[in-house]
Amino acid sequence: MSNQERVAVGRSGGADACCPGLLTVPLDEEQAVDLAKVFKALGDPVRLRLLSMIASRAGGEVCVCDLTPAFDLSQPTISHHLKLLRQAGLIDCERRGTWVYYWLLPETTDRLAAVLTRPAQGATAEAAG
Amino acid sequence: MSNQERVAVGRSGGADACCPGLLTVPLDEEQAVDLAKVFKALGDPVRLRLLSMIASRAGGEVCVCDLTPAFDLSQPTISHHLKLLRQAGLIDCERRGTWVYYWLLPETTDRLAAVLTRPAQGATAEAAG
Repeated sequence: MSNQERVAVGRSGGADACCPGLLTVPLDEEQAVDLAKVFKALGDPVRLRLLSMIASRAGGEVCVCDLTPAFDLSQPTISHHLKLLRQAGLIDCERRGTWVYYWLLPETTDRLAAVLTRPAQGATAEAAG
Repeated sequence: MSNQERVAVGRSGGADACCPGLLTVPLDEEQAVDLAKVFKALGDPVRLRLLSMIASRAGGEVCVCDLTPAFDLSQPTISHHLKLLRQAGLIDCERRGTWVYYWLLPETTDRLAAVLTRPAQGATAEAAG
């Protein structure tokens, strides 16, 4: 699946200055727009459950045919939610024969976790550039 | 300000079983509904910037009069966004005289960060592929 529709999270030009840290320095507008797209994708109970089912699957990936039965929703509705998760860069997928298989992109959840993590109080003298 | 309209994040009955961990075990429906409300509150660039401005303020709290000038938005619109953040349990506030003062409720962002954190597996060792 193509990357071009993905949202870039925590892009910030520099080296591996991955995560500005929402709680440390005021976000600029562009960072806020990027991050908000990902949080918005998580702002729905069905999508959260789908993400959780995919992320917690032992083998690391899940057939869409194993996701749908958990919901009282049509296959197209489930597919739409999965598409939004994919566009947010939270999951990726691959078609194999009849079915599509999904897996977590942990870089994105890692970044969100980092962005929401408070700097260790007292020991803040780490990052800056 | 009352607590009763707040969303409970990561409530899970047991002891201090704070965070089920979105990535570890499939969320149940109730957990997903609770969590989704908080992520939805974060799913807007203006609210993210407001939260970030509040959280990163040195003194720990911010007068609404210092928040509004950063946006091309009316005071009522800003107040509405702040109300949604408050209802999500992300911030709290107090009126003092003319102005309302806001501060972060770090328990909520801590919980979100925990929920998004992978159990220590190969955690973050994948820096430069």
